[in-house]
This record gives sequence, C-alpha cells and structure tokens, in this order.
Amino acid sequence: MPINNRQIIYANTPSPAIDPSLTNGTFKLNASTIPDNVPADKILVRAHYLSLDPAMRQWLTAKRSYIAPVERGHVMRGQSIAQVVAVGDSLKTQYKAGDWVIAYSGWQEYATLLPKEAQKVVVPPGCQPTDAMSVLGMTGLTAYFGMMEIGQPRKGDTVVVSGAAGATGMVAGQVAKIQGAKRVVGLAGSADKCEFLRRELGFDAAINYKDADWKKQLKEATPEYIDVFFDNVGGEILDACLSRAARDSRFAICGAISQYNAKNPTGPASFMNVISQRVTMKGFIVFDFAKKYPAALQDLGTWLAQGKLKRKDHIIKGGLEAAPQGLVNLYEGANTGKMMVEVTPLSEALGGKAKL
Amino acid sequence: MPINNRQIIYANTPSPAIDPSLTNGTFKLNASTIPDNVPADKILVRAHYLSLDPAMRQWLTAKRSYIAPVERGHVMRGQSIAQVVAVGDSLKTQYKAGDWVIAYSGWQEYATLLPKEAQKVVVPPGCQPTDAMSVLGMTGLTAYFGMMEIGQPRKGDTVVVSGAAGATGMVAGQVAKIQGAKRVVGLAGSADKCEFLRRELGFDAAINYKDADWKKQLKEATPEYIDVFFDNVGGEILDACLSRAARDSRFAICGAISQYNAKNPTGPASFMNVISQRVTMKGFIVFDFAKKYPAALQDLGTWLAQGKLKRKDHIIKGGLEAAPQGLVNLYEGANTGKMMVEVTPLSEALGGKAKL
Repeated sequence: MPINNRQIIYANTPSPAIDPSLTNGTFKLNASTIPDNVPADKILVRAHYLSLDPAMRQWLTAKRSYIAPVERGHVMRGQSIAQVVAVGDSLKTQYKAGDWVIAYSGWQEYATLLPKEAQKVVVPPGCQPTDAMSVLGMTGLTAYFGMMEIGQPRKGDTVVVSGAAGATGMVAGQVAKIQGAKRVVGLAGSADKCEFLRRELGFDAAINYKDADWKKQLKEATPEYIDVFFDNVGGEILDACLSRAARDSRFAICGAISQYNAKNPTGPASFMNVISQRVTMKGFIVFDFAKKYPAALQDLGTWLAQGKLKRKDHIIKGGLEAAPQGLVNLYEGANTGKMMVEVTPLSEALGGKAKL
Repeated sequence: MPINNRQIIYANTPSPAIDPSLTNGTFKLNASTIPDNVPADKILVRAHYLSLDPAMRQWLTAKRSYIAPVERGHVMRGQSIAQVVAVGDSLKTQYKAGDWVIAYSGWQEYATLLPKEAQKVVVPPGCQPTDAMSVLGMTGLTAYFGMMEIGQPRKGDTVVVSGAAGATGMVAGQVAKIQGAKRVVGLAGSADKCEFLRRELGFDAAINYKDADWKKQLKEATPEYIDVFFDNVGGEILDACLSRAARDSRFAICGAISQYNAKNPTGPASFMNVISQRVTMKGFIVFDFAKKYPAALQDLGTWLAQGKLKRKDHIIKGGLEAAPQGLVNLYEGANTGKMMVEVTPLSEALGGKAKL
C-alpha cells in the first residue's frame, strides 16, 4: 500500500536571500505517495534527522561549482539520518528494517534509495547515530582534513577558527588543540557561543565578532600573529585574519558563509599580505579526501570516545516544514553546533533502540 | 679628492600616489660628496643602470611587510648595475676597477659598499651586464620560482600571466612554454604589448585588459579554464582569473601592482571559487628561494643563450633625476620589459668593454 510522503521542493531561485515561506518562497511543500513494494535493488528509508548545511545556499545557484546545482522542481538535496523500513529482495543480506543509515534522501520523509545513497551507520561505543551526520560525518571530516592536511598546526602555532561555534568550526579548533597547537582562538557571533568555546571546548580565547572592538580583540588574542586560519566565514573576517597572518601561514578556506547570500560578494582587502607573508590559501572540499575517510573516522571516533573531542547538536523541532526557516537561521548564526531538523520523532522509530 | 655625488632621497610619504616632482614631491635631489679614499673593507661603485621595480611603492609604506620600509630622509633603496671605480686595500684580490657589479647602491650616482652589497656580474656568452638585473636577476628569478615552484605547469595546462609584458611576466610566460604548457595567455595593457607577446615571445594569446570586452576575450582564450595563474596585478584581473579557475589550479601571487597605489585596496570578489575549484593561492618573495638561485640561473642562462628565452629592456634616459617619473610610469604600465634608468652613460664607463 503506498505510503503518504511529504517533500520540500526547490521552487524559486533566492534573490539572493532564501525566503523560508512555503507559499511563494524559495521552497514549497508537496504531498505525494511512495510505493511500499520496494524494487529489488533498492531500500525504502524514513528520515529522522535532516542535516542543514551552509553549503546548501550554493547548491541553489546555477553557477560552476563543486557540485551540480539542485534543479528547480526537484526535492531539495540533503543528508539525513534515516531508518530502513523496507528492503528490496536482492539487498536482504545487506540491510534489515530498523537499520540506521546516513542517507542522501533529500528533504522528504520517505525515500527509495540505491545502496550507495544509504550507508549503514556503525555507532561506536559512546557515540550516537546522529554523530554520523556531524562529528563523525561530513562536518567532522571537513574540519579534520582542513586542519590536518592544509592547516597542519605545529607545536607553538597560533590557530584561529572562524564560525568556531558551528558544526565544522568547533571540531576544527578541537583538532588543532589535540594536535598540540599552542593557542587556539575562536571567532563566533555571540557571548554565549564564546563562553561555550572557552568553557566547554577548551579554546584559549574566543571573540564575539559582533563586538565593536573585535578587531582589537583579535590583535590582542594573536600576539604572535596567526599561523593557521580555518575559515568558514570569509569577507571581513577573512580580511582581518589576513592582516594578522604570520610568515608562511596556512589559510584553509573551507567556507564563506558571510558571502553566500551576498548580492555583491567582497574579497579580502588585505589580500596583499598573501604576498608579503607568503601565505598559502587553499580551498578544499571534503570529498577530495574520500580515500582517507576511514583513518580520519578512526581518529575522530577515538577522540570522541576518550572525551578529547566534544560534540554539540542543535536540533530543530517542528518536522520537515521547519527546514526552510532552519536554513535561514543557520545563515544568521542561530546555532551552536550541528544544526539538524527532527523530521520524525524517535518515538516512531522501529525496534525501539533509537536512543540518541 | 672627494667625488661629487648626487642622490635621490625619500622625502614625503605618498598619499597614496607617488608625486614625481623633485620639489615638494615624494623624493628630493641631494648634491653631496663621497670620499675617494675607500675604507679597506669596501669598494666604491658608480651606477650605470638603476632598476625600477613595482615593489618599490610598498617599500615606502610603513606597514608590516617582507622588508623594512625605507626611512624618510634616506637614499631611496634600489639595485643598480654599476662599475667598480676604487677598491679598499683588503679587497684588491676580489675586485678591480672596471668590474661590473649588481649593487644595492640605491638611487645615487656613487656609493661605497660592502662586498655583500655588490656581487660581481659574470656575463655568460650571449648575455649582457644588465641581464643580471632582469632576466638573470631578481625579475627573472621571481618569474622562474613562481612558475616552477608554485605554478608547476604540466603538459596540457592553460597558463595565464598578468602584467605579461613586464620584466617578470614575460619571463614567467616563456618559462611556462618551455616547461610544456599547452596554452600560455598573457594579459597586458596595450595592443602593442599584446602583439609583442604573441609575435616575439610566442604567447598563444594576449589580451589587452583595457579593451571593453577583455573578460569575454579571457573566457574565449581559456576554453579549458586556467590551471596556472601567475599574478602581478591583483584586483579586478585576479578576480576575473579566479572566475576562470580550473579544478585544483595553482595561483602564484607575485604582485598586485593595481593595488599598490590604491587608497582602498580591493580583494578578489570571486574568492569563493577558491573553495569550489580547490584553488591553491600562494604568495611568495624571490628571496625565499635563495638557495636555489644558482640552479635557476643555470637554466635561465642556458635558455637565454639558446634563444628559447627572450629578453626585453626598457631604458629611460635623463640620468638619476628621471627615476621618480620613471617609477610613476611603471605603475601606469609604460614599459614593455625591464624598466631601468640610465644614470651614467656607457661612454663614461671604465675600460671601454661596456658593450650592452
């Protein structure tokens, strides 16, 4: 019998900000059905937690990028932590109902997927299924590779992370600390976030970039300049950090959330310091390091279990239709930690083992 | 008997453009004398050709940079091709009158220097003394290391060079071609320069960035995007090349001449492509590669002698006092090739072997 499904469809190009309204906004809600007789080579999954990611804004722009844009009229792209509800005949040895998967299911409640679109989540001791979408998933891996491969903090280094209270930034700063950096400084958008970074995550300093004197604070917090900058924000923050770049510093360019919704993006005005301080700036996408995921997950999982690496999730209630507003809030910095939408309450999970 | 000397003194901070007037401008002329009884550990040199370099503008700015700024009231810093006129007693086995040296003598006719400030010029067959200040000197080495160490052009690559008709740019483009790049494209500021790049230096394409449709021309000239960009210009040109960056491209950031005199420098607005295309941008200063100079000069000298690498000098007549206006003209792109000022005519050279 077909299952009732609800989907969020990409409807209108943002101009340039996302309009979260589900009537004539960027997205629209679509009610449909999905067959419960699954094809032999597929599985049917039900989404519980939807990932909201800064990169999503760029997926809505029809420009050359690292991934094809989402087409208008299609379900919005996104990862979820989902549970298998039915398995095609040829996959019964691989999956069973109740399995947790990290799914490329998009913004919808149910999806029929190929195995490559739904990796089973192995939950290490002390971890939880949603970790596969954050600290042991894309955001954690992004932080890990940007810091380990590009930033390469050494003992004695000063490391600065922007968007430091976000899902990626908080892992990046902690990885730098675990690697022995002398001084880890976070930039974040509220006093509470800064307090969290210092108290909970052990950052040496945290600066609220909404303070009037934040540039002065940055200067004081980096008396030996900046050896490694992990940037999630771009714009004025990248500029300020360039003006504090140390000789031979490494700038891992992960994101530029301040620019994604900008009509006229701006580049770093202090760009000339790239020359005088011999800065290496390298942009990266986590996919480039796919071959190294297993070793990275081993490290991250170990650190998490040991308590050296702390996680923080920001879960939005309200079901699928809360996703558009959640995404807008993400760009406004509403979150501390990984932002996700609860699509289906855990009380509806199969098997009753869904303790998160 | 003291020798009459003339010097150009750095007098007033540019605001932000250099004022070439020698009365109340950025510089002033100073008449003085210099003793002809040379201290035992020094040599007395007479400058023939003074080097004019884009970097000079930054030496006049009291900001953290790769080199201390010139102090007001001091002789303007600069290299020259000079001839030894007198030798201190302890250096008579090293130098003799008539030797050509590349000298850190500054903007003056005569200077008393330590040996480390005046390297003897060895002129390879087919070369000339002034080559030690251009293609076999700082500009040639800058081009060489930026291209070989950062750009690393591979067969099949598209290489773009900005400021391509300048002393550094023209060598950078030729080195890329010698290294087997598929397509070398130059950006320059006049139709004549573009013609020179195509006809004389073998660039595959050359674009006049003063043409109204230069961005369209750049797009057409880089159908497979840009794998290597050697940038001397910054600003809008860097931005346009970022928008054409190929996946995993390398941007060697050598200079930003468009920004040196800018009151409000601007960064590349297309900076986000650094992420999506995984661009590596690396700033560099030629001094960083000092240990590799001998091998580089071997390559450059060989290519020059073989005719694979072509030189071009732009010599300004009018003596020492022509230097300030020459420097202003350099920022306006008046030169094709290495700009230098003839301080002392060759007819006054010692020994009569000064064929250039």
